[in-house]
Amino acid sequence: MIADDIVAALAAITGPAAIKTGDALRAIHPGSDPHNLDAGLMVTPQTVEQVSAIVKFCNGNRIAIVPHGGRTGLAGGAVSHKDEIILSLAALNRIESVEAAAGTAIVECGVTLQALQEEAAKAGLTTGIDIPSRGSATIGGMISTNAGGMEAFRLGVMRQRVLGLDVVLPDGSVMSDLAEVTKSNEGYDLKQLFIGAEGTLGIVTRAVIALTPVDRFTATALVACPSAAAAVSLFQTLRQNRALRLLRTEFMAHTYFSLAVEALGPASLAAFTQAPVYLIVESEGLTQEAAQSALEEALGAAIETGLVLDAIIAQSGKERNDIWNIREDSNVITRAYPHGYWFDISVPLQHLDAYLRQFDGGVAALGADVRGFAFGHLGDGNLHICVAGEDENPHKDAVKDIVYANIRQMGGSFSAEHGIGLEKMPELQALADPVKLALMRTIKQTIDPNGIMNPGKVVG
Amino acid sequence: MIADDIVAALAAITGPAAIKTGDALRAIHPGSDPHNLDAGLMVTPQTVEQVSAIVKFCNGNRIAIVPHGGRTGLAGGAVSHKDEIILSLAALNRIESVEAAAGTAIVECGVTLQALQEEAAKAGLTTGIDIPSRGSATIGGMISTNAGGMEAFRLGVMRQRVLGLDVVLPDGSVMSDLAEVTKSNEGYDLKQLFIGAEGTLGIVTRAVIALTPVDRFTATALVACPSAAAAVSLFQTLRQNRALRLLRTEFMAHTYFSLAVEALGPASLAAFTQAPVYLIVESEGLTQEAAQSALEEALGAAIETGLVLDAIIAQSGKERNDIWNIREDSNVITRAYPHGYWFDISVPLQHLDAYLRQFDGGVAALGADVRGFAFGHLGDGNLHICVAGEDENPHKDAVKDIVYANIRQMGGSFSAEHGIGLEKMPELQALADPVKLALMRTIKQTIDPNGIMNPGKVVG
Repeated sequence: MIADDIVAALAAITGPAAIKTGDALRAIHPGSDPHNLDAGLMVTPQTVEQVSAIVKFCNGNRIAIVPHGGRTGLAGGAVSHKDEIILSLAALNRIESVEAAAGTAIVECGVTLQALQEEAAKAGLTTGIDIPSRGSATIGGMISTNAGGMEAFRLGVMRQRVLGLDVVLPDGSVMSDLAEVTKSNEGYDLKQLFIGAEGTLGIVTRAVIALTPVDRFTATALVACPSAAAAVSLFQTLRQNRALRLLRTEFMAHTYFSLAVEALGPASLAAFTQAPVYLIVESEGLTQEAAQSALEEALGAAIETGLVLDAIIAQSGKERNDIWNIREDSNVITRAYPHGYWFDISVPLQHLDAYLRQFDGGVAALGADVRGFAFGHLGDGNLHICVAGEDENPHKDAVKDIVYANIRQMGGSFSAEHGIGLEKMPELQALADPVKLALMRTIKQTIDPNGIMNPGKVVG
Repeated sequence: MIADDIVAALAAITGPAAIKTGDALRAIHPGSDPHNLDAGLMVTPQTVEQVSAIVKFCNGNRIAIVPHGGRTGLAGGAVSHKDEIILSLAALNRIESVEAAAGTAIVECGVTLQALQEEAAKAGLTTGIDIPSRGSATIGGMISTNAGGMEAFRLGVMRQRVLGLDVVLPDGSVMSDLAEVTKSNEGYDLKQLFIGAEGTLGIVTRAVIALTPVDRFTATALVACPSAAAAVSLFQTLRQNRALRLLRTEFMAHTYFSLAVEALGPASLAAFTQAPVYLIVESEGLTQEAAQSALEEALGAAIETGLVLDAIIAQSGKERNDIWNIREDSNVITRAYPHGYWFDISVPLQHLDAYLRQFDGGVAALGADVRGFAFGHLGDGNLHICVAGEDENPHKDAVKDIVYANIRQMGGSFSAEHGIGLEKMPELQALADPVKLALMRTIKQTIDPNGIMNPGKVVG
C-alpha cells in the first residue's frame, strides 16, 4: 500500500486528528534516540478497540508497527524506519483505580510513571520502581522493557510488580489477564512473555500494578569505602540490620565520583574524592531522628570494622539533593566524553570486586588516554559502564571483550535493565544460550508470523 | 514399544538400579494422590545428561513422561497412567552453592525445601516461601507449580524467587538460563513459561533461588475481628506500621476456627470462638521484647478503633505452637467431613468481605446440613475453601457456582496456589480468557509437538 492509503485506512479507525505526519510529527521530540520518529507516520489510538483495529489492519497488510510509550528507552527499542508506522499509546492514559487495602492500581499503559506515583501517593502508596525519566516514561513502556531502577533488590523489577495485563496480539485479538491478586496459577503465565519483549510480540494496553507503602522518614548518607568488596559487605550488613530499613544503595567507582564532583559540585566534597568506591545509602526509620541516628550508628560501626573509610550524613534537603545529583546526573560523563561506549550489566555481588578489578586492569591496558566509568545499583550488582577516550575510541571490540569478560561464568548479565532493542542485538546473538535463542525465534514466529511487531528488534 | 523394551532402553541410560517397577515401586508412598504411581514404571536419573537422554528417547518413541518432585501437589499434576513413565527428579538433590552476600542459592531441582532452608540458615538466610510439606516438596516441584504459602504478600510467590533456570525441553535439548542476578533482560524471559507449567512444557533441572534474611525476633497473636472488612483494614494498618515488620497474617472464618479449636484445642480457647473472623498475626521486632510490645501496642490501638474484638499474644513457644496448630492442621476438616469439595481461590482485598458474605449466603441456601469452611492467607486474599455436608454432597455444580460467583469480575483467581493439574482443568476451560487459552494451546503444541510432557494436565 502507499502511504496515502494507509493514512486513509488508519483515519477510518481513529479519525484524522489521531494521525501525525510531516511537520506535525517533526514538532514532537523524538525522545532518547534521534531516529525514533523516522517512520514519518504516527497514529495515536484513543481506545483499546482502536489499537486492536489498527493492529488487525496492519497484520492483514503486512505493515510493520513500532509501539511507542514515552520514548525514553536507552537501547533503541523505539527506533522506527520508513514504511513502518508508529503506534503511540500516549492517549491511553487513564488511571482506572487505586485500591488502598490491596495495594494495587489498574492503569491504561500510556499513563506516565509520575502520574501513577502522584495518584498512588494519595493512598500512601507508591510504584516501587522509580527512574529519572518518570515524567515521560509510561507504565506500558516500563512493562515492555521490564524496567529496573534503584529499589529492585528489595521490591523487584517491573516484572514483579505486574499482577495482570491486557495485550493486543499481532492478529488484533485481545488477551485479557487482568488478575488483581499475587496468587493466580491459571495455566501458563503468558503475560510474562510480553513483559520485557519490547513490543515485538504484542502491545500492552492495560495493567494491574502492585503498589507498596511510601517511604516516610529517610536518612541519606554519602559513604566512602576502601573497595568494592567492602561496599558489598556493607550492603549485606545494612540489609540484615533490623534497626533500619535499607531503601537504596547506589554505587559509584572513584573515576565516576571524582569526575561528577568536579563537574557538579558541591565544592565541599572536593577533598572527599580519594576513596576507591562510593555509595549513596538511604534508609528509613520510625521518625526522622530515628532514621538518621540508626544510619549514623550503623555507619559508625562499619568504620570500626574497616568497611567504611568515611561517611557524610545529609543534614538538610539541600545536602541530600547535592548528594543525589552526583549520582543521577550521569550525563556528566557524556558531556566530558561524548564518544564513550556504554554498557548496562549485572554481576552477582560475590563477584563484584573481582569483576571491577578485571575491568580496571583491562581498561588500563588500552592506554593512558582511555578511562572507564562504573556506577549503578549496588544491591542488584547492576553497573552502568562507560569506556571513553578523548576522541572516538578505536577499541570497540576490545572494550566489549573487557566488559563482557567472564560475565556469563560469573552468573551475570550483559543486559541488565535497559533491554536489547537494536543496540544489544549483537550481544544477544553472541552471548545468549543457543537453545534459548532458538526458542525465542520460534516463539516470535508463532505469535507474530507476519513479523509486523517492532521488526528488527530483540530477535530480529 | 512394549514395557520390557522401554525398561531396557532406559536402563541403558541410567543403569538398571535407577528403574523401579512392580513391588519396588509399590513400596514407595504415592504422595498426595493415590494415582500418582499408576504408570507402574519410575526412572530416577542421576544427572541432567541422563534426564536429557531419557526425554530424547521418549520423544522419539512417543512415550509420555510424568515428572515427579515430592508428590505433595494438591491438584493431581503428578498423577500417572499406564503406558506413561514417571521421571523422578529425586536424585538431582545437590545444593551447589549458597551465596551470603548476594542472597542466592544454586540448587538441583530435587532438593527439598527443608534441605535448602537448613543450608541457607547457616548464612542467616531463608527461602522466603514456606509450606507445610517442606520435608518432601522439592524446589523443582515448587517451581513447576509456582508455590505460594504464607509470605507471598511481602516476598512474592515462587516465580518471584527464581532468578535462573535450566530446563530440559521435550526434544531433550537443555535450555540454560542460570542468571544469578535480579536484573537480566536478555530477550524474552522464557524461563517464566516453565514456572507454573506443571511439567507440561519441559523438566526443570536446576535453579537459582533468591534467598531472604531469616526472621529473628517474632511475636505471634491470635486476633478476633468483627468482620472480614475489619481484618482487611487491620492488615492494611499493620503493614503500614513501621514499628513492626509484618510477617504473616493468616485468616480463619468462624466456621473453620470453631471446628478446629473444638477438635484440636487448646481448651483455653473454647470461650474464644464467638467472633466472625480470626487472624494469626506474626511480626518481627529488634528484640523479642520489642516485637511483642510493638504488636501489643498495635493490636491495642486496633481494639480502640473497633477493628479488633480481642487478641491473645503468645507468651511462650507452646502458646505459639498451639495457635499455629489451629491453622496448619487444616486436615481437621477432612477428618470431620470426608466428602467436602475443596477450592483454592484469590480475591482482591477490597472485595474480600463482599465475597465472603456472598459465599456464606450461598452455602446457607444449600440447606442446613451444608457447611462452608474458609481459611487461608489474608495478605494475598488467598482462601482455601471446603464446602461439605454430612454425607456426599449432591450439590457439586451449585457449590462451584457459589465459590466462583463474580470471582473474575472481582479481579480474583479460581486457581490461586495449587495449580491446575487434572483437578482444575474444567475451571480453566470454563473461566480462562479464550484468547489466552488458545495461545496456551499453541505454545504447548509449539514446544511439545508430540505431546509427551505430562499429557492431559493443564491444557490437556
